[in-house]
Amino acid sequence: MNQHTRKTIIGIMGPGEQATTTDLQNAYQLGQLIAQQGWVLLTGGRNVGVMEAASQGAKAAQGLTIGILPGNNTSGVSSVVDIAIVTDMGNARNNINVLSSDIVIACGMSAGTASEIALAVKSNKSVILLNDDLNSQDFFQKLAPNIHIAHSVNDAIALTQSILFNC
Amino acid sequence: MNQHTRKTIIGIMGPGEQATTTDLQNAYQLGQLIAQQGWVLLTGGRNVGVMEAASQGAKAAQGLTIGILPGNNTSGVSSVVDIAIVTDMGNARNNINVLSSDIVIACGMSAGTASEIALAVKSNKSVILLNDDLNSQDFFQKLAPNIHIAHSVNDAIALTQSILFNC
Amino acid sequence: MNQHTRKTIIGIMGPGEQATTTDLQNAYQLGQLIAQQGWVLLTGGRNVGVMEAASQGAKAAQGLTIGILPGNNTSGVSSVVDIAIVTDMGNARNNINVLSSDIVIACGMSAGTASEIALAVKSNKSVILLNDDLNSQDFFQKLAPNIHIAHSVNDAIALTQSILFNC
Amino acid sequence: MNQHTRKTIIGIMGPGEQATTTDLQNAYQLGQLIAQQGWVLLTGGRNVGVMEAASQGAKAAQGLTIGILPGNNTSGVSSVVDIAIVTDMGNARNNINVLSSDIVIACGMSAGTASEIALAVKSNKSVILLNDDLNSQDFFQKLAPNIHIAHSVNDAIALTQSILFNC
Repeated sequence: MNQHTRKTIIGIMGPGEQATTTDLQNAYQLGQLIAQQGWVLLTGGRNVGVMEAASQGAKAAQGLTIGILPGNNTSGVSSVVDIAIVTDMGNARNNINVLSSDIVIACGMSAGTASEIALAVKSNKSVILLNDDLNSQDFFQKLAPNIHIAHSVNDAIALTQSILFNC
Repeated sequence: MNQHTRKTIIGIMGPGEQATTTDLQNAYQLGQLIAQQGWVLLTGGRNVGVMEAASQGAKAAQGLTIGILPGNNTSGVSSVVDIAIVTDMGNARNNINVLSSDIVIACGMSAGTASEIALAVKSNKSVILLNDDLNSQDFFQKLAPNIHIAHSVNDAIALTQSILFNC
Repeated sequence: MNQHTRKTIIGIMGPGEQATTTDLQNAYQLGQLIAQQGWVLLTGGRNVGVMEAASQGAKAAQGLTIGILPGNNTSGVSSVVDIAIVTDMGNARNNINVLSSDIVIACGMSAGTASEIALAVKSNKSVILLNDDLNSQDFFQKLAPNIHIAHSVNDAIALTQSILFNC
Repeated sequence: MNQHTRKTIIGIMGPGEQATTTDLQNAYQLGQLIAQQGWVLLTGGRNVGVMEAASQGAKAAQGLTIGILPGNNTSGVSSVVDIAIVTDMGNARNNINVLSSDIVIACGMSAGTASEIALAVKSNKSVILLNDDLNSQDFFQKLAPNIHIAHSVNDAIALTQSILFNC
């Protein structure tokens, strides 16, 4: 028997300042649903965009929230991040976001988000795309078999459950 | 008002495979006392030495445990780490250990531990040394003013409280 | 006057094991032309794919070659890398590849290459795409204004000159 | 036969702003002698202290100089660094300094330097200490067998040769 206390971590990645209203709504609901499943939420930790919205959603549902910060201190951290990991690695922290998540949900699209999807693919992590950017869906699906497309927040959670319980 | 949900994180750094019996006993008790204070424990996450002992102590007192792992997956993680952060940065993850801790307690001495103390000094983090290695105490105290010497586990916790509540 | 001895560094990024014959030919010629311009070549340093081919091309033209390695030693380094930088950061070293290059040329496409393009965009680096993957061209051009499309090796070098001398 | 073009890299680590006049003189001479041996010099790349002095010495003897920078661009780089590697990793770049050097020479002492010595010991790199800080000599020699003490610049170069040619 191989008991352990380790928690399942679901990473939500997405735009910061450039997030759309839809991205923010999706991120908030994803955060809530992740917390309701008993999973821990991981984001890039900043107090903007998808990171902030997902953390707020998870906290509204009494979830535990982790933020992997790019700078060398906690300035700019979301006020609802419980565990702030201070990396001082700039955008290279995106690789830690991905490696520390059991599954990565990309909510919206941006350069940083694209780097996280690509790094996840490179490390054979399962990635779920929730966006309406057909170019990105085409591009990443052609790049890798471990890319899944979600058509709604509920779809993303159902895919997450299906991947987690088949591993 | 500046409310936030962020938890206080205390890092325990110390030898892995070369930890002494005293190091392990100290680490276990430190982990327990940290959890009893309501603080989160952060270690290097591996299932050996001071990392394992501190995590076991914290878990025995129902604490939350974070492990910052050097590799690119969770192999070798302590079974009582709740939150595994997978860095794939080797020894450079020592800088994340230090930056993410509000206070660093060095329990015992080794090359990795020395690097963590030095990196903490460099980032102006408070460091508490709990060991019987007078050379290291002399060396690090001469190097920096933010090095504190603890003569017992209880002393280390008292110093931690005193530093936290004066910040 | 602000004299310095710093050399211009051009990064060539591209697939490793999955590089196509066209990618390898392009990479070799790009390496040659970069060296003939007096620029330093930077790659991911491994002895496979676009990294190896570009380094061989640069070396054939007596260029200087830098390899930014993912592991913790020089095993697997190309035999024609002059300067091996050993990062022990896995795929997070891709961010160093990009930040250390004055201009990034992406030769072919893969998950690692996509992460480098995305990280370059995020850091406002100029990126030149040399491939025949229309999906990736569409995706990255929509993502950012600092993406340039090259239709040949000579086109990529002309674009590089034009960007360098207008900075 | 295993031919390659890779150059021998000698790392000089030491204080930045707090370097003493002796440290700076030693660093300059070390840089000169390293270049005269045909070795490449690696430093932390900044335009202060031991980094600047060593790079100036190497450049005075027509050597090649590498600087591994902590920030996300080349601001603050020494004007005599030929190859600037931009890491955006803050103090964690110290691990890259050490791993990329065939031998590490610590010239003077500071928190950053101590972290580099400790990280070098942890990775089984040979380290040569050139300073007059007996505490640090005692501490690091007790910590590891791969620490060598040099009593002069010429002594440090002789030790470097002896270690390189016995590997």
